[in-house]
Amino acid sequence: MTDFSELDTPAVLIDVDRVDANLKRVQYYADSHRLKLRPHIKTHKLPRFAKRAIDLGAIGITVQKLGEAEVMADAGITEIFMPYNIIGAAKLARLKALASRVNISVTADSEQTVAGLSATFADASKPLLVLVECDTGMGRCGVQSPAAAVALAQKIAASPGLRFGGLMTYPAAGLVEANAAWLAAAKQALADAGLPAPIVSNGGTPDIWRAHEVKAATEHRPGTYIYMDRFQVSKGVGGFADCALTVLATVVSRPTEDRAIIDAGSKALTSDTLGMAGFGLIEAYPDAVIVGLSEEHGTIDLSACATKPKIGEKIRIIPNHACVVSNLFATVTLISNGAVVETVPVAARGRVD
Amino acid sequence: MTDFSELDTPAVLIDVDRVDANLKRVQYYADSHRLKLRPHIKTHKLPRFAKRAIDLGAIGITVQKLGEAEVMADAGITEIFMPYNIIGAAKLARLKALASRVNISVTADSEQTVAGLSATFADASKPLLVLVECDTGMGRCGVQSPAAAVALAQKIAASPGLRFGGLMTYPAAGLVEANAAWLAAAKQALADAGLPAPIVSNGGTPDIWRAHEVKAATEHRPGTYIYMDRFQVSKGVGGFADCALTVLATVVSRPTEDRAIIDAGSKALTSDTLGMAGFGLIEAYPDAVIVGLSEEHGTIDLSACATKPKIGEKIRIIPNHACVVSNLFATVTLISNGAVVETVPVAARGRVD
Repeated sequence: MTDFSELDTPAVLIDVDRVDANLKRVQYYADSHRLKLRPHIKTHKLPRFAKRAIDLGAIGITVQKLGEAEVMADAGITEIFMPYNIIGAAKLARLKALASRVNISVTADSEQTVAGLSATFADASKPLLVLVECDTGMGRCGVQSPAAAVALAQKIAASPGLRFGGLMTYPAAGLVEANAAWLAAAKQALADAGLPAPIVSNGGTPDIWRAHEVKAATEHRPGTYIYMDRFQVSKGVGGFADCALTVLATVVSRPTEDRAIIDAGSKALTSDTLGMAGFGLIEAYPDAVIVGLSEEHGTIDLSACATKPKIGEKIRIIPNHACVVSNLFATVTLISNGAVVETVPVAARGRVD
Repeated sequence: MTDFSELDTPAVLIDVDRVDANLKRVQYYADSHRLKLRPHIKTHKLPRFAKRAIDLGAIGITVQKLGEAEVMADAGITEIFMPYNIIGAAKLARLKALASRVNISVTADSEQTVAGLSATFADASKPLLVLVECDTGMGRCGVQSPAAAVALAQKIAASPGLRFGGLMTYPAAGLVEANAAWLAAAKQALADAGLPAPIVSNGGTPDIWRAHEVKAATEHRPGTYIYMDRFQVSKGVGGFADCALTVLATVVSRPTEDRAIIDAGSKALTSDTLGMAGFGLIEAYPDAVIVGLSEEHGTIDLSACATKPKIGEKIRIIPNHACVVSNLFATVTLISNGAVVETVPVAARGRVD
């Protein structure tokens, strides 16, 4: 049995026991609140974990890009939600090809997106399910009011080749009440217009334990909950002991008493700070601060540490943001109780289109 | 002939005419100052551009990781400098294998690194060239004083299997005089100790036009100069018309009058700000500000724009940092006068170890 500490660095370690515990904990929560789960695969990009979530009770998966949907469809996943405005001939053709082999649904927040989808699916054997994306506070995509949601829903319902699927939001973290009120108003407005929403899809991990407070929602799309990370811990979603993804790095230099340099930089940890100080938590040296990253070097301030790592020592880092780390590595190594289980390719890595 | 605007998005475009102009401009500068060039391939990660730089007069290439060296050696490049502390049995074995087929040199900033290199190369048929990495102001790796440089140089010179190659620094941007003084003092101290430095290797693009002021340097290792980017323009190294790498993205949503959402987020542009506001420059809308990135969405503030992009419109973005964008894409598309020349794999992408 290989101990993970024998791996070359930098490497991504995934603790499969923590993965399973995280999946089960949220599935149990959702079940107990009669909320369906449609987990986002962006965090892990691995068909095996998508399937595991479904085995545990998820109703399907969420992806963000066509390339991710294609990888998951190739792996045998048949229920795929892609909450994105699909624009342009090339992507519409890929979407149509996907829809011929799996159940795929999408979102739209404009008449232009709806028009493109309808032109593509007008002659399809089954209609495409389209949800209206709602901006309930995030300030990203989405219609700006419940009235606009109704208008676009009517447009979808009237478009050849399309079927109105309901409402979708990616909410702003922390604004649970505002999100709940927005969706409730839109759901009511749709009912009043004689066009009830079959699905109301809410998302995100930061407020996962309050998902049941969004009464209008029929389902939730958490992503990061499977791995957790330093940001989610900062939001109180769980503890560091729940974090399943760590980056293994080697100390390659100790140029001064208070400085260590590791072989993991922005190409391993990314520059995502998500508003926090530092670029990750070093498990064995929690008082150390990763103060800077260049592409292949991480710079660590050890001034607050009682003991300090030596050159050649391997350290494990809980990154600020797990999803973007998954995207940087061709493979990840699954571990259980410190032993290597398997090294697997990150199948949907880098699928940006 | 395909126009680049027909490409699906997000896509990375490389203007090969600008690449050639950038390579020639810096080679001419270096030649005129009798400074050798050893360009860093981290920016492009493409064997073809490494070879082009050599054809134009560069004496070899610089890489940061063994994986990059392996890709470049496989492509036929024979002069490779890897300014990194190579630590651990797995990496030392790969280094030894590389040294058997190309001329590779490395750096060290500690006795531990030197000991590992010496143990590995003691029985090699030719000695490994090792330069002392110097911290001349960057605060990353490197010995902390000229006296420490001499001591480590003596250690290298006395170690079986190794040959002392000289000094190397990656300097802090803007601190040209301090860098020059540090290297001059170390070079003199080495000469005084009877151990002259054959190579003194300086690096970086931000101060490339002042490289000749670092009199002790025998060579320079610029990286980003080949593509340029928004950061280098902010430092005055060149203008936006010199930027060879752009990200082509599509406007997928216009949720409000002053907001556009594009299909390029942190998985295409990265979160690198390098101290600047915003995440890139939109060529056709220079008054637009890319105010936020999530993984697959870029959020743009259009409030200062007289004209505003429509849904479905493709825009070109000059990223803050070109090198990290190259690392995110499986392929890049070479263009010339707006026409597609070829789409090529980014051979050394994601080689983090």
